[in-house]
Amino acid sequence: MTTESLPVLSILGGTGDLGTGLARRWAQAGYRVIIGSRTLEKAQAAVSDLQEVMAERGVADIQVEAMDNDAAAAAGDIVTLTVPFSHQASTLEQVKPALAGKILIDVTVPLVPPKVARVQLPEGGSAGQIAQAILGEEVAVVSAFQNVAAHHLQEGKGIACDVLVCGNKKDARAQVITLVEAAGMRGYHAGMIYNAAAAEALTSVLITINKQYGCHAGIKISGLGEDE
Amino acid sequence: MTTESLPVLSILGGTGDLGTGLARRWAQAGYRVIIGSRTLEKAQAAVSDLQEVMAERGVADIQVEAMDNDAAAAAGDIVTLTVPFSHQASTLEQVKPALAGKILIDVTVPLVPPKVARVQLPEGGSAGQIAQAILGEEVAVVSAFQNVAAHHLQEGKGIACDVLVCGNKKDARAQVITLVEAAGMRGYHAGMIYNAAAAEALTSVLITINKQYGCHAGIKISGLGEDE
Repeated sequence: MTTESLPVLSILGGTGDLGTGLARRWAQAGYRVIIGSRTLEKAQAAVSDLQEVMAERGVADIQVEAMDNDAAAAAGDIVTLTVPFSHQASTLEQVKPALAGKILIDVTVPLVPPKVARVQLPEGGSAGQIAQAILGEEVAVVSAFQNVAAHHLQEGKGIACDVLVCGNKKDARAQVITLVEAAGMRGYHAGMIYNAAAAEALTSVLITINKQYGCHAGIKISGLGEDE
Repeated sequence: MTTESLPVLSILGGTGDLGTGLARRWAQAGYRVIIGSRTLEKAQAAVSDLQEVMAERGVADIQVEAMDNDAAAAAGDIVTLTVPFSHQASTLEQVKPALAGKILIDVTVPLVPPKVARVQLPEGGSAGQIAQAILGEEVAVVSAFQNVAAHHLQEGKGIACDVLVCGNKKDARAQVITLVEAAGMRGYHAGMIYNAAAAEALTSVLITINKQYGCHAGIKISGLGEDE
């Protein structure tokens, strides 16, 4: 597989379950992936763990490397942010100079611990809108992946969860939908960045459902007439 | 079928596609249904239309009657509100005295025309919270049915759409889930009333998807491990 024409994908704050889950799936799809963290050491540990898991599964030929967040933001063509809401603004302020002209995939869910099962959308409407406001119009912020259980990303299997993709630029949304598909899911154009509120709020509902039904719930868009 | 033990269901502002769709399904399930409107005449016209459609389908034995909103609120054991957002507060203020001790199913979606594909949640967080604030703790407000396409309710067939059911009282949510099932869908306990924001916001996303894919989209909760 040639990766010359594929964008380099950086994942900031990428050492958690969601970040390494996306890294694993994108790397397996042939992308060069950079895991970023606040320190290089933490990123290196995550990459080592990931390579070990992949080797156990007999997948050796993947390109994943470690950097600190600044270097990762600079090196990535498309940059994904998977930090807790409380670190979203500070991380974006820090790496902002490296993002001009790029796509920033915001995976932030504005959960307010300890009541994470309660919808508590922020001033400004949504984390997606906050990211766009911080980064300005030179960065195409695209909101995605809020409703995907990290548990399912970590598994190698298919995922019964669709991804709502919001952002002000259609071309940027389309590029992210390609990455959603590379990760084994289906993505939908879900409107401008203000519509990120829907997916962000839905995460607390899914947490509520998980608690009651003992599962890792997601959503599927129905009524498309393809399988009904 | 005996209906003695079944609650009487009133639908305020029930002359639109969503209200008559619910009326049709609940009446077919054996419930006595009252369609309310601002005038008795408008409610009577909706009931006549409904009876005509049902007769065409060979369903004669349904109990649907017409009242004005005040009388319908008083006569119903469980009262459903299906008015546009702009009429939500005034309608609830008007019928509030008749709702004490009852369940109010709020189907209001806080759309702000003309940009209905844009998530624009109200001050107060959600229409569901607004309803609970107006009615006070004597009324169990339960938010439901925001994501169901009226188009599919009007059809007699099964509906590939799940219903997120939010409200502060678990028993009230459970009664509404029974009504969701009576209407041919599956309902989920989705948390307290503040979580209504998720389903309300999602409606604008589904409108966005409908426009792009030419469909009547809904959502299904996935990952429950039953069919995967």
